[in-house]
Amino acid sequence: MSEDPGSPKPIVTFLGPVASYTHQATLDAFSSSDFTLTPVVTIDDVFASVQSGTSHRGVVPFENSSNGSVVFTLDLFADLQHKYPDIIVCGESYIAVQHCLLGHPDSHHASHPISVSERTGGSRVGSGVIESPLSSGAVTPTSAIPNPQKPTARPVGDLARIKKLYSHPQAWGQCKIFLNAYLKGVERQDVSSTSRAAQLVAEDLTGESAAVSSVIAAKIHGLEVLARGIEDRGDNTTRFFVIRKRAEAEVGDATSVDRKEIGKDEQGEGDWKTLVSFTIDHANPGSLAHSLAVFEKYGLNLTSINTRPSGVENWNYIFFVELKGRREEGIEDGPVNKALKSLYGVCRSWRWLGSWENRLAR
Amino acid sequence: MSEDPGSPKPIVTFLGPVASYTHQATLDAFSSSDFTLTPVVTIDDVFASVQSGTSHRGVVPFENSSNGSVVFTLDLFADLQHKYPDIIVCGESYIAVQHCLLGHPDSHHASHPISVSERTGGSRVGSGVIESPLSSGAVTPTSAIPNPQKPTARPVGDLARIKKLYSHPQAWGQCKIFLNAYLKGVERQDVSSTSRAAQLVAEDLTGESAAVSSVIAAKIHGLEVLARGIEDRGDNTTRFFVIRKRAEAEVGDATSVDRKEIGKDEQGEGDWKTLVSFTIDHANPGSLAHSLAVFEKYGLNLTSINTRPSGVENWNYIFFVELKGRREEGIEDGPVNKALKSLYGVCRSWRWLGSWENRLAR
Repeated sequence: MSEDPGSPKPIVTFLGPVASYTHQATLDAFSSSDFTLTPVVTIDDVFASVQSGTSHRGVVPFENSSNGSVVFTLDLFADLQHKYPDIIVCGESYIAVQHCLLGHPDSHHASHPISVSERTGGSRVGSGVIESPLSSGAVTPTSAIPNPQKPTARPVGDLARIKKLYSHPQAWGQCKIFLNAYLKGVERQDVSSTSRAAQLVAEDLTGESAAVSSVIAAKIHGLEVLARGIEDRGDNTTRFFVIRKRAEAEVGDATSVDRKEIGKDEQGEGDWKTLVSFTIDHANPGSLAHSLAVFEKYGLNLTSINTRPSGVENWNYIFFVELKGRREEGIEDGPVNKALKSLYGVCRSWRWLGSWENRLAR
Repeated sequence: MSEDPGSPKPIVTFLGPVASYTHQATLDAFSSSDFTLTPVVTIDDVFASVQSGTSHRGVVPFENSSNGSVVFTLDLFADLQHKYPDIIVCGESYIAVQHCLLGHPDSHHASHPISVSERTGGSRVGSGVIESPLSSGAVTPTSAIPNPQKPTARPVGDLARIKKLYSHPQAWGQCKIFLNAYLKGVERQDVSSTSRAAQLVAEDLTGESAAVSSVIAAKIHGLEVLARGIEDRGDNTTRFFVIRKRAEAEVGDATSVDRKEIGKDEQGEGDWKTLVSFTIDHANPGSLAHSLAVFEKYGLNLTSINTRPSGVENWNYIFFVELKGRREEGIEDGPVNKALKSLYGVCRSWRWLGSWENRLAR
């Protein structure tokens, strides 16, 4: 963490490296003129930095529209080791994900022309589909692909030289169709982010590796875009959470610093979301249903449920419920406040994990 | 699929290859003298084989006690492409998972002794921790590690030569502590199963690769066990589902063939589980709560909830509910039957995904 002692700007820590999708989400929520935006290596690092007070805010991925929840983030909110007791969600951001295949220009092959049959031979390998004349040497995709979403994007250029792929594990699941069609059987290495993947490919000068990453990462690391928009679904979107440290006397309204956060809408009181986790007595029949019924009792619309292993006993779970509404400060009869109070009687333990303004445009 | 035309034995398809944990689960539920046990490459293949009628039964992993749900399996039950409309769960099996690090004997290094400082040098790499004297050449672990569960197992032998790891993606998450301690930064390649990982390592004669796999796989592929019980939690267990094709006029009792399934308990009528999936109208507040309340109304104990993206619209989900109870054939007033009937009014769609005997010893 590089905290600049000469700057009074609050630090916002995000899952890096620079040019990651989380970086985009951070720029979406925080102005770099008001905040020092600091990349860290893991989601755990973001939580630790906010919990320790080093960072004013943190930004982490929470779920993807195609892949579902980011279980690493859920497990940090579950906090089985009691490392992050004060972390709460205070905002969200939605970033459209356009994955690209990034690599080096096809210079090696251009100087040693290989016949089409050699290059495309071995369809068992599943790569080597050629969309442009080899003699043109054009591996940079034109914008001539009118609708790359369905059936799927196609590479402009030869991928037969690609022997290794780098990306974040979630990205494989989001680009299944393209990768199965064009790079089936090619070795895959999981790395911590799509941006890190691009960096590793940039360092590999053999030209035999490629990354599933972003256009921004291509620019930063000087790579070619070998295929654009290779995700299975064109509306692929990742949702990010802004986290902060819970104050001593919770629940805080927006502070003066918060007001600098981009798009902070002081009028948007009517549309909030809340995240709550709870555990139940699994031996007690109906415990889960009773816990969930509490929210219904107070007219709270549950928008999602997630579960993770409780870490205490096999086949016991910690439940995460997201609902429309806000835990009110000082107003004990708000519906969320009342529901939380009622939870005491029916579940084993519960934790309020924050309330924030809904940013989902509908 | 190798169906033996000379044999009348029904086929049971499982996620292979031979010696996978799913194979163990299959042997736990089906006698190989009564059934032809057939490994296939993907979970999708298991579903397809059962749906087409090629296989009598299929066995797939469903959840792990440390890692949570197998999302691939959930997505196949979600069946967004309507490929598997007749697949239902008819049984379950629990298999204790003991992961081991498998590799080749340390013969290369034994003939070219390297000093301890060279081998352990570069602690940034994070490998090279030596537990036994190099001169002994002992890389096969003794059973002398009394309690390998906590803090964690330790390798008996030098791991500095290991440059690449193979395993199933779920295994990385189950062995985090060991891998971080002894093989941090070593390249990881995801493969389709832990047994396949062992096979690939066996084929790599450089001795520089290792697999996170099982003792059975070590025997089958002729590898050494470099470390035993490297999973984070000693009670690491994976739960498997036996699936079958739903009959025309559902819901069937056990057939004569079913009775050959090992441990099929005809007396165990009192302890059944049921899996149901449903989708809701997300625009309708309270829709999720109302759907869940249906189960409570009929006194059904919900034991778990899972969600996956609905595939229809972003941030809409398909919910999976597991509950204690059984959908009865011909008895319309059973509580599960009544609850399913009531679901018609509150959720957008639902699907009964099977009822089976509870195999969880408590």
